[in-house]
Amino acid sequence: QVQFTEEGNGILSVLSTSIIALIRIKDLTVEKADEVVWVRGRIHTSRAKGKQCFLVLRQQQFNIQALVAVGQHASKQMVKFAANINKESIVDVEGVVRKAYQKIGGCTQQDVELHVQRIYVISLAEPRLPLQLDDAVRPEVEGEEDARATVNQDTRLDNRVIDLRTSTSQAIFCLQSGICQLFRETLIRKGFVEIQTPKIISAASEGGANVFTVSYFKSSAYLAQSPQLYKQMCICADFEKVFCVGPVFRAEDSNTHRHLTEFVGLDIEMAFNYHYHEVVDEIADTLVQIFKGLQERFQTEIQTVNKQFPCEPFKFLEPTLRLEYREAVAMLREAGVEMGDEEDLSTPNEKLLGRLVKEKYDTDFYILDKYPLAVRPFYTMPDPVNPKSSNSYDMFMRGEEILSGAQRIHDPQLLTERAQHHGIDLEKIKAYIDSFRFGAPPHAGGGIGLERVTMLYLGLHNVRQTSMFPRDPKRLTP
Amino acid sequence: QVQFTEEGNGILSVLSTSIIALIRIKDLTVEKADEVVWVRGRIHTSRAKGKQCFLVLRQQQFNIQALVAVGQHASKQMVKFAANINKESIVDVEGVVRKAYQKIGGCTQQDVELHVQRIYVISLAEPRLPLQLDDAVRPEVEGEEDARATVNQDTRLDNRVIDLRTSTSQAIFCLQSGICQLFRETLIRKGFVEIQTPKIISAASEGGANVFTVSYFKSSAYLAQSPQLYKQMCICADFEKVFCVGPVFRAEDSNTHRHLTEFVGLDIEMAFNYHYHEVVDEIADTLVQIFKGLQERFQTEIQTVNKQFPCEPFKFLEPTLRLEYREAVAMLREAGVEMGDEEDLSTPNEKLLGRLVKEKYDTDFYILDKYPLAVRPFYTMPDPVNPKSSNSYDMFMRGEEILSGAQRIHDPQLLTERAQHHGIDLEKIKAYIDSFRFGAPPHAGGGIGLERVTMLYLGLHNVRQTSMFPRDPKRLTP
Repeated sequence: QVQFTEEGNGILSVLSTSIIALIRIKDLTVEKADEVVWVRGRIHTSRAKGKQCFLVLRQQQFNIQALVAVGQHASKQMVKFAANINKESIVDVEGVVRKAYQKIGGCTQQDVELHVQRIYVISLAEPRLPLQLDDAVRPEVEGEEDARATVNQDTRLDNRVIDLRTSTSQAIFCLQSGICQLFRETLIRKGFVEIQTPKIISAASEGGANVFTVSYFKSSAYLAQSPQLYKQMCICADFEKVFCVGPVFRAEDSNTHRHLTEFVGLDIEMAFNYHYHEVVDEIADTLVQIFKGLQERFQTEIQTVNKQFPCEPFKFLEPTLRLEYREAVAMLREAGVEMGDEEDLSTPNEKLLGRLVKEKYDTDFYILDKYPLAVRPFYTMPDPVNPKSSNSYDMFMRGEEILSGAQRIHDPQLLTERAQHHGIDLEKIKAYIDSFRFGAPPHAGGGIGLERVTMLYLGLHNVRQTSMFPRDPKRLTP
Repeated sequence: QVQFTEEGNGILSVLSTSIIALIRIKDLTVEKADEVVWVRGRIHTSRAKGKQCFLVLRQQQFNIQALVAVGQHASKQMVKFAANINKESIVDVEGVVRKAYQKIGGCTQQDVELHVQRIYVISLAEPRLPLQLDDAVRPEVEGEEDARATVNQDTRLDNRVIDLRTSTSQAIFCLQSGICQLFRETLIRKGFVEIQTPKIISAASEGGANVFTVSYFKSSAYLAQSPQLYKQMCICADFEKVFCVGPVFRAEDSNTHRHLTEFVGLDIEMAFNYHYHEVVDEIADTLVQIFKGLQERFQTEIQTVNKQFPCEPFKFLEPTLRLEYREAVAMLREAGVEMGDEEDLSTPNEKLLGRLVKEKYDTDFYILDKYPLAVRPFYTMPDPVNPKSSNSYDMFMRGEEILSGAQRIHDPQLLTERAQHHGIDLEKIKAYIDSFRFGAPPHAGGGIGLERVTMLYLGLHNVRQTSMFPRDPKRLTP
């Protein structure tokens, strides 16, 4: 048996080498009936009733009912002690697994309960919690009179350590971890190399708008708005197919449901042989592999999130639907929208287009190709046939943009001309242009916003739900 | 057959749908003899000789000799044209694969050569290269009088796009991509969840030294010196085992071979049951899995780097050697070093200790455990038995530190006391301390420097060799 002393200040010190294995709550099933086990969990709820105290012990997304009752193993004092442990405290419990007489509602382990023999407090929570976990997972029901308490977003984010303990948050971020894993798995299988690009840069490559300034010793520098220049340099350095996962910074004062000042970019850049669609196809297939992987490996998480935020399953086609910009404009006009051929899509029009595409093609994921040259950045390769069009594309999930990409100009002379046409100071982008002077293969790429993919796959409505510690113009904490 | 037009400015436009497959240079072997193939590669070298021109075509780490000779398929003009293409230009070549009469030295494809029938320039390099690739891969030979040209580090870094094309650079960064992959593979297998932590933070948690300041709209913020607070918050939020890979920023004016102002941190944090060695063992095993994976999957890359930078193979034990700090002090004293029991290790002493450990235990990798409490940060858990010691550790490769870690204090009261003892303004770390007020499991973790692991595994001598675009107090470009 284990012996440990709780020295002052919660330092656990093991005095014996025969350590008891702690069992996971999710493994407590009827097969374990009548066994004595040790469990470490949080006090999720606690309810005293005469000579008994019912606890719900929680471990991540799983929980079990535990009963402390006056009898052979527990005194009246122990029942009282157990009943008085603050919610969210972490405890070690020794107990006998017993088959339940009837299904235990509200617990994931419905068929068994734990008859407690010993209980130790490992870490005591303060008595007043800033939010209740049960409130934080309650679906919002509009217009109902007897609607019970829910937790508003700022309270959640201010107390993120507690909010992240809910089954919904646990599921969201396990699934997000899965997106990163599937992204890399797929690309490594396709022969891509992972690169690491610097975030502190000496010049703001796209002219200096929306960029954060950093004090750098006696000088100043900027935070990278994208890894694009560095991805392209790797292509010019013959890595051929590269990807990176990392923070991207935008000093944009946008306070919307889908903008963050710092987000995670899943970036791809790739040399191609004959046509930039080689790259578009690889990117789209990577996203399809992510969607399929999530369906296969994260069904439990998807269902957990759906309980609080009900949503239609995410639909996609194989191969991915690719529409040209002019087709999208035609669809929108048919639906009554007035817009010019070279006008960019507004956010409401993107949303509307998403609905039209869903109706017509039954997919939540599609590519919009061949954007007007006029609405894209200077480094975008013009269409070789139609000078008003360009070899550029966005990808959409449920009517919202999750990726922007293009074939990049790899010829220094054309790049110079296009920069001049955009009125960009050539001196500021000299290093960028010079990267292409020693032989550069034709290449294309794009950047995916991780938080947006997570949000839209799960049908959530705010990107702050899918960023663990979101940053926006008004929030820098925790 | 393919038809493509090279329109102005290097825009390739495919006019035919029957595209010719380009073959990879590494796949050109005697089995392909007498086949007509298309290859895209760079002109690595070019040598005209009467009616012939010998080209070496390069593709990443592979190259092949190509012969353009006056005859049925090539005119005198074409030979001249081929001979005049600038080095490092990218070309498409149609040619017949021919068995070579004798091994072709200096090429990876020694048994075949390509008899060129057509050649197109895809991207022309400028005539003067800032560095020669052959010089850039030449081993430095000390003291030899006839030593040929090599390339100094600043020239390399200033022209990184070209320097990264060398076989050595290609190998280093493919191996580094492998380290990241093995790190995550291993941890995901062990049940860890990947997290994304913010880099822009509102307060400099360790008191404000060595931190970069960022302008944040009308206020200011800082760049995270480590993801530690956020990893710990995830532990307090029940994720139990987390890791992250991302940039770490240090505004330290250190101009050494092993310091960067921005580097990539491979970070781990984990709740444990009884003893922080549970975490130490997991971290050490993760590194061992990386070392083994590199041996298995990256032998070619290791050998390529060794050609330029010869080095003993990296040795490690299973399980990893773990020494206590007092043992290390005793070994150093025995070797003549004078130092106090609670004195930190200097860099030369770390190096010396590495040599002593290698001699005695035949390992390049070991853990140094139980550092004096006095030399560690305020959040380090004191040793419960010896108050001058602490539950903290560093890990070393070839005598240099690659990881620093500890059991963290999870009790808010003890954390407050330790911060006060260190003279830290409690107001500034209030959010940090508050994270532990609602139940926090005992936990430990550590952060690994990716560039250092790559450097030391390969026996290189400067961390700038293993950072694609290094940042130090004097370098912010490219």
